[in-house]
Amino acid sequence: MENFKQFLVALSSAVVVGIVSIIFVARWVCHYREGLAWDGGQAEFNWHPVLVVSGFIFLQGFAIVVYRLPWTWRYNKLSMKFIHAGLHLLAFIFAVISMVAVFDFHNAAKIPNMYSLHSWLGLAALILFCLQLVLGVGMYLIPFTPASWRAAFMPLHVYSGLLLFGSVIAVALMGITEKLIFGLSNPKYKDSPPEAIFVNVLGVLLVVFGALILWIATRTAWKRPSEQILHTLHTNGEADENSKVGPSLAELSDAADAEPDGDIRRRSYKLDDQEN
Amino acid sequence: MENFKQFLVALSSAVVVGIVSIIFVARWVCHYREGLAWDGGQAEFNWHPVLVVSGFIFLQGFAIVVYRLPWTWRYNKLSMKFIHAGLHLLAFIFAVISMVAVFDFHNAAKIPNMYSLHSWLGLAALILFCLQLVLGVGMYLIPFTPASWRAAFMPLHVYSGLLLFGSVIAVALMGITEKLIFGLSNPKYKDSPPEAIFVNVLGVLLVVFGALILWIATRTAWKRPSEQILHTLHTNGEADENSKVGPSLAELSDAADAEPDGDIRRRSYKLDDQEN
Repeated sequence: MENFKQFLVALSSAVVVGIVSIIFVARWVCHYREGLAWDGGQAEFNWHPVLVVSGFIFLQGFAIVVYRLPWTWRYNKLSMKFIHAGLHLLAFIFAVISMVAVFDFHNAAKIPNMYSLHSWLGLAALILFCLQLVLGVGMYLIPFTPASWRAAFMPLHVYSGLLLFGSVIAVALMGITEKLIFGLSNPKYKDSPPEAIFVNVLGVLLVVFGALILWIATRTAWKRPSEQILHTLHTNGEADENSKVGPSLAELSDAADAEPDGDIRRRSYKLDDQEN
Repeated sequence: MENFKQFLVALSSAVVVGIVSIIFVARWVCHYREGLAWDGGQAEFNWHPVLVVSGFIFLQGFAIVVYRLPWTWRYNKLSMKFIHAGLHLLAFIFAVISMVAVFDFHNAAKIPNMYSLHSWLGLAALILFCLQLVLGVGMYLIPFTPASWRAAFMPLHVYSGLLLFGSVIAVALMGITEKLIFGLSNPKYKDSPPEAIFVNVLGVLLVVFGALILWIATRTAWKRPSEQILHTLHTNGEADENSKVGPSLAELSDAADAEPDGDIRRRSYKLDDQEN
């Protein structure tokens, strides 16, 4: 992998910032707020930020970059697809439970649902995330999806995934804004009590986490090497040129999804050297 | 240009959604709010959303995709760089005036400045945008910046530009949330009066505008063809392969900034055919 040290710094920063964000949201609801419970009250609402930060943001972030981890390149691509899809499914389940918590709380407290821009965009993100998950599984995990469909859909799959990830963070920042305005009364948000500063810092951490994940996900030099490209080069007698065409390979590697993994792997060339 | 019709649909959708957003924000402040003035009151505050939407979002969006417009490919790259930088500078000026309006309003109304996450992230975005502008001019408009620096800095320049654009939209959505909560009292935001629905729709329009600009900006097939790459291919005797290496060319074309434009243009090969 090119710039392996830079990759390690970015990845470990993302892990640290992500874990610190989860600690911050847990401390917010347990220290400054009413803790966690499933009782229709404020403590049930508190599951909303906790599950969004830990699931819909942290898990989704790592689901996105899981192919980038060089330690996984020795494993079958199909296994990695299952991990990628599985982490996204887990993130989706966290997000759904977090929504249920809010609806329960709103209904018990007779607060209207779905009136704010935060709720509109949050629900839209959840529905589109579900659609992305279903289409992703249909395209890349069902063996008889035509190769041409897989290749044609990949740019949209990548773009939608990154856009949804960024949108979920934006929606979380709107949620933090709402909660601090509604939740702080004496002193108010504008008086900057310790809770306000603390949760603002959580917002900044979420932005930094998002920026790191997007950086890792968009460095083409850090992509998992494509088995298919290596095979194609071999059959074209260009295998010796591997080192010179590195970046272009990375660019094209999405196309690898156009063929079933097992088949690619069996035909792959010099794969073990590349993967270890 | 590949998929020219698709490009036209995306671009014209972005233009329409962007203009409708500006009409929405103008109608918001003029019909539902106190209109526009520079008097330290609510009408001065109203310049904040108007200038952010029209300048920091709309102008920045088109500054980002200006290289993608095929009608501009006949013009010298250096001229396009000036337009790219000029539109960003204009967006920055709009943003600075929009900030001054808020600080003036806050100071006159004795509301604290810089307490909210919206204000923290908004100011951070403005400062980083200024830094991006200064570094961009220093790297790509000062003729004696080393070519290696230009090439090395380009991935960071592109990533930061897109991240800042997305962040500005996220910060605007937080601002809309704040203003609707603070501005609506009888009926409140949660009662969904017409203003709340109208401004929520404005928020959705901003997200759609951002998504369209990011789609256009990240389609490598729609990049301005690089003069330098064509020249390099020619000197390597690979000019006949042009049609086969299209996507890889697009990927690499940022590297064209590594050389002064005039020089590239004089040495370029088959350029007029490519540009018209």
